Amino acid sequence: MSPFATFCLRMGDNALILGQRTGEWCGHAPVLEEDIAFANMGLDLIGQTQLWYGMVSDELGKSPDDLAFFRGEREFLNTLLVEQPNTDFAHALMRQYLFDAWHLPMLDGLTGSTNADVAALAEKSVKEVRYHIDRSRDLIVRLGDGSPESHDRMQAALDWLWPFTADLLARDAADDTLVAEGMIPAAAPVQQAFDWETAETFARATLTAPDGPRRTGGRTGNHSEHMGYLLAVMQSVPRAHPGAHW
Amino acid sequence: MSPFATFCLRMGDNALILGQRTGEWCGHAPVLEEDIAFANMGLDLIGQTQLWYGMVSDELGKSPDDLAFFRGEREFLNTLLVEQPNTDFAHALMRQYLFDAWHLPMLDGLTGSTNADVAALAEKSVKEVRYHIDRSRDLIVRLGDGSPESHDRMQAALDWLWPFTADLLARDAADDTLVAEGMIPAAAPVQQAFDWETAETFARATLTAPDGPRRTGGRTGNHSEHMGYLLAVMQSVPRAHPGAHW
Repeated sequence: MSPFATFCLRMGDNALILGQRTGEWCGHAPVLEEDIAFANMGLDLIGQTQLWYGMVSDELGKSPDDLAFFRGEREFLNTLLVEQPNTDFAHALMRQYLFDAWHLPMLDGLTGSTNADVAALAEKSVKEVRYHIDRSRDLIVRLGDGSPESHDRMQAALDWLWPFTADLLARDAADDTLVAEGMIPAAAPVQQAFDWETAETFARATLTAPDGPRRTGGRTGNHSEHMGYLLAVMQSVPRAHPGAHW
Repeated sequence: MSPFATFCLRMGDNALILGQRTGEWCGHAPVLEEDIAFANMGLDLIGQTQLWYGMVSDELGKSPDDLAFFRGEREFLNTLLVEQPNTDFAHALMRQYLFDAWHLPMLDGLTGSTNADVAALAEKSVKEVRYHIDRSRDLIVRLGDGSPESHDRMQAALDWLWPFTADLLARDAADDTLVAEGMIPAAAPVQQAFDWETAETFARATLTAPDGPRRTGGRTGNHSEHMGYLLAVMQSVPRAHPGAHW
């Protein structure tokens, strides 16, 4: 697989798996407005997935549907962060915010890609993701700097999820090739924007990112135990009716 | 489908789905002995599933594996009780106990079946299920009549699960045909044994079965929302690799 296809799958898989997790809140979120917000973000993300998969469909000889529904766990290249479960609303919000804090500068950098299709995709997506982070940042601050219970829940979510941000920010040889071609932004500006965004927001939210070991693996196909269950549920209908149309 | 095949699928599906739920505790139960107990009961139940499915394999033209892994939700005829989730250890124990309290007199009645294969299957299974109910009854009493927290958790589990026992005890025209042929026990002795067993045990456990509406549907293929997720996980590997052998 080319470095470009690897990169597009990583972007698309992140969007798909987070979109699936987000969609799990549909009908279950604590208030109606948040229920609709999560569902809408899920739709944005799944729309972005289709665009990323469409970029590599020809090279891989697979349709976007095939890529979503007929790959196995080890073939998915999303980060460990997005596959983490909807433990409670705090975990779902914190997962969203940490993803947004990386997603926005990454897409912003991609708007300057030397690949015109990538630049156009990023231009379209970055507008959606600005709304995502406006909402998630606002809720992180309100609940982090809220009641003792809401603070403790947000801190517990941050303690659990923070180590997985290393997987978001990791780079490898495939990325280095694309950076050299001007196709994707270098690691440093994305990392700096992420660090600045999260430091500012956690200060306002009275939350503390934990020290300790960081976790990587998802973007090379080595997932946590939650991933298999997520795929089983997400893929069950197409797998039960392969080739079905509507 | 003949009344006999319907009955065998109901028995086998109950055993399979409860076996799947029971197996979900593997590596997660609160103490090692209970972890192993749940896993062993799961294995007993899946063994019984194979026997029940084997009885109707010829009529239905499907192997036991096909019946377990390549039927859709509406084709499963297990009761609503067994598909209820492992909310906590109290729910898992109470679900097991309520099932055992029906399973034992049902199998005991089936040992007198006019169908020699059914009688032999029941003879083998009833020995296993006597162990199951010895354990589940003992834990219901110890935890129901235990600490305030253990009591409250057991009562909450009973409140949730009790309405689904109606689905265990329901009978329809297929059953009536088989009762008339002496193939399966009449409803009354099974119901009476269940009522006596649960009344005695809940008195010792200081628990109260709730009044209120009862729930039926599973044994006619109308399942709760939990069933689709359970099947997605249970069937994901065979569906991803149809026709695979080992």
